Amino acid sequence: MKMASDQLRSLATALLESRGAEPQAAALQADLLVEAELRGLPSHGLQRLPFLLSRLEKGLADGCARGVWTWSRRAFLDVDGERGLGPVVLMNAMRCLKQNLPGMGIGVAAIRNANHIGMLAYYAEAAARDGLIGIVASTSEALVHPFGGTKAMLGTNPLAIGIPTGDRPFVLDLATSVVSMGKIRNHALRGAPIPPGWAVDADGHSTQDPVAAQSGAIAPFGGAKGYGLGLAIELLVAALAGSALSPDVRGTLDDDHPANKGDLLILIDPSAGAGTIPALTSYLDSLRLSRPLDATRPVAIPGDGARSRRAAAIDDGIALPQPLFEQLMALEAA
Amino acid sequence: MKMASDQLRSLATALLESRGAEPQAAALQADLLVEAELRGLPSHGLQRLPFLLSRLEKGLADGCARGVWTWSRRAFLDVDGERGLGPVVLMNAMRCLKQNLPGMGIGVAAIRNANHIGMLAYYAEAAARDGLIGIVASTSEALVHPFGGTKAMLGTNPLAIGIPTGDRPFVLDLATSVVSMGKIRNHALRGAPIPPGWAVDADGHSTQDPVAAQSGAIAPFGGAKGYGLGLAIELLVAALAGSALSPDVRGTLDDDHPANKGDLLILIDPSAGAGTIPALTSYLDSLRLSRPLDATRPVAIPGDGARSRRAAAIDDGIALPQPLFEQLMALEAA
Repeated sequence: MKMASDQLRSLATALLESRGAEPQAAALQADLLVEAELRGLPSHGLQRLPFLLSRLEKGLADGCARGVWTWSRRAFLDVDGERGLGPVVLMNAMRCLKQNLPGMGIGVAAIRNANHIGMLAYYAEAAARDGLIGIVASTSEALVHPFGGTKAMLGTNPLAIGIPTGDRPFVLDLATSVVSMGKIRNHALRGAPIPPGWAVDADGHSTQDPVAAQSGAIAPFGGAKGYGLGLAIELLVAALAGSALSPDVRGTLDDDHPANKGDLLILIDPSAGAGTIPALTSYLDSLRLSRPLDATRPVAIPGDGARSRRAAAIDDGIALPQPLFEQLMALEAA
Repeated sequence: MKMASDQLRSLATALLESRGAEPQAAALQADLLVEAELRGLPSHGLQRLPFLLSRLEKGLADGCARGVWTWSRRAFLDVDGERGLGPVVLMNAMRCLKQNLPGMGIGVAAIRNANHIGMLAYYAEAAARDGLIGIVASTSEALVHPFGGTKAMLGTNPLAIGIPTGDRPFVLDLATSVVSMGKIRNHALRGAPIPPGWAVDADGHSTQDPVAAQSGAIAPFGGAKGYGLGLAIELLVAALAGSALSPDVRGTLDDDHPANKGDLLILIDPSAGAGTIPALTSYLDSLRLSRPLDATRPVAIPGDGARSRRAAAIDDGIALPQPLFEQLMALEAA
C-alpha cells in the first residue's frame, strides 16, 4: 500500500507530538524519517519511529530539548544534546555554527547525549543548499570488525559530505561498513544467503548465513583503507564530543538506554576559498558524460541516485511494509 | 647496497641546496623523502629527488619560497604556494594555523601553486605529535576512473588523519585509488601481471597487463564508496584552494609544468573538545588485543606498521635501487 509523503509526514509529526515532542521538533524529526523513505533508505525511515516514540515515552528522548551549546573556542561549538531528538540538536548546532561562519570561514560542532541523527545526507545536503560545505560524522553501537579482526569493535561510523555545485549539490553519504546491518536483517527475513566477505559469525568465521552474521560482525568497506577511515571517525568523534567508544555505545537501536554516541559537524564557507562553483559543476558534468563501463549505466555522482529516487517517490508515493503501517496505525490509535 | 638514513638525508639536503634551495627548506624536503623511505614507501622517497632537482633548475620549483598566506577569514588561511617546495609551504601553513588555534579550536589552510607534498602521513603525524588533530588532503593528475566509468578523471586524492593517542599517534594515510601507479609500474618492471580489478586499459577494458594499465586508469578503492570519497576530496580541495581539477593537473609527476594541484590542511585542538586521550589510547589497545582472523597477524592500528618499519630501517639502513643510487651520485658530482 502506497501513501503520499505529505500524509506520512503528518502522521509521523502527530505521533511525535502526541508523545510530548514540541511541534517544530516533531516536524523536523518526521521530515528526516520521510526523506529517508523518499530516497530509498527505509533502514533510516519510518521503521525507526516506533522506537523513537517508545524512547520519548520512557524519557530516553526529550522532545523539547534543543541541546546546550558552549563556544569552547571561537570556532568550536561544544554541544550537550540533553537527550534531545538527533535532528533537532544537530540542526540547532548547524544554525549556531552558521551565524559564526561569515567571520570564521570554518567551524566545528561536537555533540554528545543526542538521539540518533538518522540519514546523514539530510544535513550535508541542507548545508550545500545554503551554499556551504557540510561534513557530518557519527558513531554507533559496535557492529563492525577491524580489518584482519573478528570482533565487532567499531560502529558503522558514517560520513557525509555536502558540497554546493550548481543546482544539484554533491551529497556523499557512506557507512564505513561494507553493508548495513539492516540489509543483513533483510536477507535473514527473505531466507537469502549473504555474499562472501560481508560478515563473520560469533566465532569469527566468515559466514554467508545472515542469521549467524547478526550475532557476529560486519566487515569494513574497502579492506584496510575503509577500516582505517571508520576507525578515524570513531576516534575523532569520541575525542571531540566526549562520547562513548562503540563497544560502550547504546541507545540508537534499542529503547532501553540513553543514547551515548557522538556526532560531528564541520561547516566551511567556500566563499572564503579561491575556487568557483561553476568549475566544480562543469567538472561533474564531464564525469557524468564520460564513457561508462556498461553503456546502459552512466557514471553517477553521489547524490544523483537519491535525487531521482526522491522525485519518483514524491510522484508515486511511499510503499510501507504492511506490518509497519499497521503498527503506526495502532500507535496513532493508542 | 644499504645506507644510513642520516647519510641519505645529508646527501639529499646537499643536492637540494646545490640547486638553490635555502638550507632549512632543503633539510625539510630531504627529511620528508627519507622518512618515506624509512616507512617503506619508496614511491614517495628519493626516487622523487631527481625530478625535484630538475624542477628547481628550471624554475618550476622555488627553493626559497615559503608561500604567501592571507587570513581570508579568522580561521581560514588562503595560501599561494609561489611554486615553493610542497613540504615547506605546508609546514609553514601549519605553523601559521597553530598560532591561531588556541583561540579558534579549528582552522583550515587551502594551498595552491605549491609543489608535491609527498607522503601525507608526515604532516598528520607532525600535528598529532604536537597534541593536535591533523587532516590533510591533496589532489593529483587524473589517474583514477570513476566507479562504473573507464576514463582517468580523478586524482589519487590521498587523505591523512593524525590523532594524538598516548605515545603512539594514530596516523591514517590512504590514497583513494585501489593501488598506486608506482605499484603498477613496479609490476611492469618485474613483468608480473596485476590482480584483476586494479585497472582498465586505454580502451576502458579491465586488464591484468601492467603496461596496458599505465595508459589506462586505476580503479578507486572500495567501489562506489571509495570513488565517492576520492571525488569529495577532488571537489573540496579545488573549491577551497582554487587549484585545478585533476584532468587539468600537471607538475607532480613531470619536470615540465608548474604544479597546479591543491592541498588542504585542517587542524583541530582536541583540548577544545570533551574527550580524553587516555580513553582513545585504551580503546586502541583493546583493538590491538582483539582476536585476529589469522592468529599470526594481530589487528593493526593505522600508523603501527609504518612505525615498526621505520624503527627497523633506522637500525638496518635503507636499500636504494642501484640505478637510483648511481643517479644521485652523478647528480652530486654534476
